[in-house]
Amino acid sequence: MLKLYSFGPAANSLKPMLTLFEKFEFGREFTVHQLNPAKFEHHSDWFKAINPRGQVPALEDAGRIVTESTVICEYLEDAHPTAASLRPEDPFDRAQMRVWTKWVDEYFCWCVSTIGWHRYVGKMAQKLTDAEFEEKLKAIPVPEQQVKWRRAREGFPQDMLDEEMRKVAVSVRRLDDHLRDHEWLAGGAYSLADICNFAIANGLQFGFAELVNPSDAPGLIRWLEQIAARPAAQLMFASVPREIVHETRELNV
Amino acid sequence: MLKLYSFGPAANSLKPMLTLFEKFEFGREFTVHQLNPAKFEHHSDWFKAINPRGQVPALEDAGRIVTESTVICEYLEDAHPTAASLRPEDPFDRAQMRVWTKWVDEYFCWCVSTIGWHRYVGKMAQKLTDAEFEEKLKAIPVPEQQVKWRRAREGFPQDMLDEEMRKVAVSVRRLDDHLRDHEWLAGGAYSLADICNFAIANGLQFGFAELVNPSDAPGLIRWLEQIAARPAAQLMFASVPREIVHETRELNV
Repeated sequence: MLKLYSFGPAANSLKPMLTLFEKFEFGREFTVHQLNPAKFEHHSDWFKAINPRGQVPALEDAGRIVTESTVICEYLEDAHPTAASLRPEDPFDRAQMRVWTKWVDEYFCWCVSTIGWHRYVGKMAQKLTDAEFEEKLKAIPVPEQQVKWRRAREGFPQDMLDEEMRKVAVSVRRLDDHLRDHEWLAGGAYSLADICNFAIANGLQFGFAELVNPSDAPGLIRWLEQIAARPAAQLMFASVPREIVHETRELNV
Repeated sequence: MLKLYSFGPAANSLKPMLTLFEKFEFGREFTVHQLNPAKFEHHSDWFKAINPRGQVPALEDAGRIVTESTVICEYLEDAHPTAASLRPEDPFDRAQMRVWTKWVDEYFCWCVSTIGWHRYVGKMAQKLTDAEFEEKLKAIPVPEQQVKWRRAREGFPQDMLDEEMRKVAVSVRRLDDHLRDHEWLAGGAYSLADICNFAIANGLQFGFAELVNPSDAPGLIRWLEQIAARPAAQLMFASVPREIVHETRELNV
């Protein structure tokens, strides 16, 4: 039985989660252990014994732990090939898939994440007293994550927010330009390139509606709806609750 | 015949270059087309027709172009499997290999690169007149690269240099801690994890000798020497010249 430690079906957690729902039977072949980010559960000692970096998602497979969302997706294809293959067979197409997943991890996810932290995580952190906040920070093993929490609470510098918003717009343009002319991102078929980009792009039609709407980004909107309508995605969203961290908005970090 | 467009055998260019030298016969199965960074050849129109991002390395294989150094390495394993396999067979070990190559691309390469640009590329850019420099900048397709060139010429902010130096030290510690107890980085065998990390780490024993020396980092030093002594590495260094961009120092960006 595979076990995924994750937040709800959004952001990096969604990548291996949707991959699992596409490939395996939920509850029989895999389970999801959902951590609560509002309780900083990923920084708790029990979870840091699983992933010393205190980051979700992490996959447990026969007692071994695989970390890093994109690496987990490739691992599932390597270790558990199923009829639902999520990597193109052609090596050139597979390389294009990896250019897209790499771009998510090095560019797209960071700009969306910073704006998400600015909007939602900051408010969550502001509810803590200074002493409580400093106590939480101490439990975070990655120094860059400590800096990000502090910035979220104190307010990100405006020039950083402006630059990240610029990158979100560049990212939306890049995806939409491709998806206006192509059904999928790589190799003419649904693949990890789509899953990993969907993980970050899904929700932009609400949070960044001025960029992601049917008239400005028809290719991207069509592709988001196409993935959300897949049986695996529908089952995932119905089975794993999204977390609420501030008012009625889900956490998307 | 495979053709690699690259700079000399250092940094990102070294990753697919050493992979090619490990797997194939130089001159018969692959060639290297070396671009001159001091002439900004990677931003020339002829090369941007090959890679619109104006970045080396790029691999040409039967008329198709694969970009992104780490993606090229995996592509060579997918498209041209040889007796010299550079990926572990076990899926879990392969995942560990990818955690290491991903870490190079998202963390290790950036801190080393910024310090390298500060030390060497800045001086190269300062030799240009303002008008020449602005003309060169216009040819660079990636906005973040334009910013990096401008910062290199004007001087990186000190707090950025301090932070990158901190990350270089963290990186050296991470590699050495692992390599004191393990011959190789992943799966008990020489793999793309070693090649991609060697690409960035080789040279630190000169440029960062206060960190990378036999008494402070014996595991890292042993591993650097072990890779440099491989026949493929020796042939690569003997066959492809390193570029000189400033006085007697090679470019390592």
